[in-house]
Amino acid sequence: MSEISISPHRIAGVRLACVAAGIRKNGRPDLTLVEICPGATAAAVFTRNVFCAAPVTLARRHLAAAMPRLLVINAGNANAGTGEQGLADALTVCQEAGARLNCAADAVLPFSTGVIGQRLPAEKLVSALSPAIAELRDDAWEAAAHGIMTTDTVPKLFSARVDTAHGPCHITGITKGAGMIKPDMATMLAFIATDAKIGQSDLQILVSELADRSFNRITIDGDTSTNDACILIASAQGPTLSPASPDWPSFRAALEGVFCELARAIVRDGEGATKLVTVDVRGGQAEADCLRAAYAVAESPLVKTALFASDPNWGRILAAVGRSGASGLVLTDIDIAIGGVRIVAGGEPVPGYDEADVARVMAGAEYIIEVRIGQAATHATVLTCDFSYDYVKINAEYRS
Amino acid sequence: MSEISISPHRIAGVRLACVAAGIRKNGRPDLTLVEICPGATAAAVFTRNVFCAAPVTLARRHLAAAMPRLLVINAGNANAGTGEQGLADALTVCQEAGARLNCAADAVLPFSTGVIGQRLPAEKLVSALSPAIAELRDDAWEAAAHGIMTTDTVPKLFSARVDTAHGPCHITGITKGAGMIKPDMATMLAFIATDAKIGQSDLQILVSELADRSFNRITIDGDTSTNDACILIASAQGPTLSPASPDWPSFRAALEGVFCELARAIVRDGEGATKLVTVDVRGGQAEADCLRAAYAVAESPLVKTALFASDPNWGRILAAVGRSGASGLVLTDIDIAIGGVRIVAGGEPVPGYDEADVARVMAGAEYIIEVRIGQAATHATVLTCDFSYDYVKINAEYRS
Repeated sequence: MSEISISPHRIAGVRLACVAAGIRKNGRPDLTLVEICPGATAAAVFTRNVFCAAPVTLARRHLAAAMPRLLVINAGNANAGTGEQGLADALTVCQEAGARLNCAADAVLPFSTGVIGQRLPAEKLVSALSPAIAELRDDAWEAAAHGIMTTDTVPKLFSARVDTAHGPCHITGITKGAGMIKPDMATMLAFIATDAKIGQSDLQILVSELADRSFNRITIDGDTSTNDACILIASAQGPTLSPASPDWPSFRAALEGVFCELARAIVRDGEGATKLVTVDVRGGQAEADCLRAAYAVAESPLVKTALFASDPNWGRILAAVGRSGASGLVLTDIDIAIGGVRIVAGGEPVPGYDEADVARVMAGAEYIIEVRIGQAATHATVLTCDFSYDYVKINAEYRS
Repeated sequence: MSEISISPHRIAGVRLACVAAGIRKNGRPDLTLVEICPGATAAAVFTRNVFCAAPVTLARRHLAAAMPRLLVINAGNANAGTGEQGLADALTVCQEAGARLNCAADAVLPFSTGVIGQRLPAEKLVSALSPAIAELRDDAWEAAAHGIMTTDTVPKLFSARVDTAHGPCHITGITKGAGMIKPDMATMLAFIATDAKIGQSDLQILVSELADRSFNRITIDGDTSTNDACILIASAQGPTLSPASPDWPSFRAALEGVFCELARAIVRDGEGATKLVTVDVRGGQAEADCLRAAYAVAESPLVKTALFASDPNWGRILAAVGRSGASGLVLTDIDIAIGGVRIVAGGEPVPGYDEADVARVMAGAEYIIEVRIGQAATHATVLTCDFSYDYVKINAEYRS
């Protein structure tokens, strides 16, 4: 079995660079390039927010037209809500980058993250392209993980190695995101690469399915970003893999591990978050009912402030499930446990239940809330965090 | 025309009392009685939270069986999540109250508000019934408005007088609620009475329609309570009114005014709230689309923290509309204005728009956010408040 690690494996065929283009204040790095070798495949999922940002529109269009040779990622400006001008600015950056790399503009995918509604300073990005290209290296994953951060407090990087019958295969992924997080197809910028050789259609299935099990199961504030994107690259420098390969299951498991750890790292770094809480709902008429109930609990401001206070206020959990819209809810079906301590059974408090046991669990930094809403063999899990003073502080002061 | 006033008119046929039964700490009044004369009609709407509290279940059942003679309202304990025991406790209170008032138990409607999941101390309520009944008076509306409060910081009472062809008719209403507020049929306890004589079916239509235009158009935290109830009483001591009466439109307008002012008072007193903001959405394919977009904006934690900061961060409004699920959204249709200042037109920032003008509006305590999402003649309005440090403080510390 593969092991998920936080020290990055290089991915043959993928080089990265990160420089300061002057979009963010204080000279912090804000332009990240990811160069991909010819012959690689790539697949992506993007935000379902109808008002997606200009770079999302353009990246979708370019990815449909050509295999990407370069990702250009800027922090500090989302290029969202910027209309035709925003599209033109993003295209300028792609054209200028393509010219410097001897590839077509549609082999360049743009990604932006930061403030919505301000014009992208394309000229600053263009000026920084040549210096950044000169710095491309295959060991710059950690620098790239830093370069794509906005309100994130820590970089998010995970890596895995899978030994296949045709030699070792590597996976490295980075992501960013701490607010405006309820991905509805993917999350706010995740870039995952492997050196395996994988056909494009298999890769698209992989990225869609794994994003559904990772980035699409987290929430910080219920706000789906305009810029979410998750891209998976197979550089084709290592073993050839397909769903028919004997090594596929172990490769897929390792890749899922990287996706899930990246998603988990986003919630752990949620704006102002002090807790990482798994909401696990079982037994709904359909998996969608479990998911609806799980999101209602995971997004309730009342539940989230109780998590912050380490207060076993299970009535708020019950109330959230009750308004969730999950089908077939009956009070006498409901069981609730926190950190394995059974609190509610059959819709009523468990006799002899000691609140102090639960308060002890909730004083910890990570725990699970389990809710049973029926007897069916269905199941859904959502990761969430608490709602603290610092969430308000960060979002009241951001931009100022 | 009638004028909405905050000094209560007495309603002939309705007497109130408020005493301390010892459920809340510090000897604060926590038991409120509303006695209704024989011959009155009453109609109500209740929470749609599937896990409604025991008193909601019992009040629904009793109201279907008999016209109410007495409302028994306790604060400090919601009697929700208490199972069969909770129903038995609420029934005990109704039976004991009925015995003291010489009426059947099903002519008594129970209402509870407070902490979820703790057993109702029925014996404390029963002991306080006789002293409370001895204190019933027709000028105790303000005391009752105080008695039903929990985390509310101010009592909420509005009154109106309508002069009809058959003499004056009066309306007085009280409500409570500051958190767990996104009423989905009614809000957390509202009691409105008139001395008009109105048939029960007309009254039911009135309470449903007016709750939909008032309590069902507000949100503080998106959490629908387990205990919401709104009851409208017509004591039949004044003019007889029906939809056929020439005075019906002015009576209905006055009643709607009282409903809307009560709903508005709830949002103004929202937990930790410093702003009262109207979100007004026009032009969706259907009114439901306008409402979906309005609620997405009104409930977005990112929008609400920006309101707290008086920050014209319109990108968060755009992002919320974009994820709202409203049908037929097209970016180039979107206009946004705050306090009458046009910010976005056709999906792009208005040329020459000065952020300082909007910051000035947002520094005030009340203003409107207007969003156009299309050209249809549809419209929906939702009242909301901001998300402050104090919201977190109140909900992290409540119960402790």
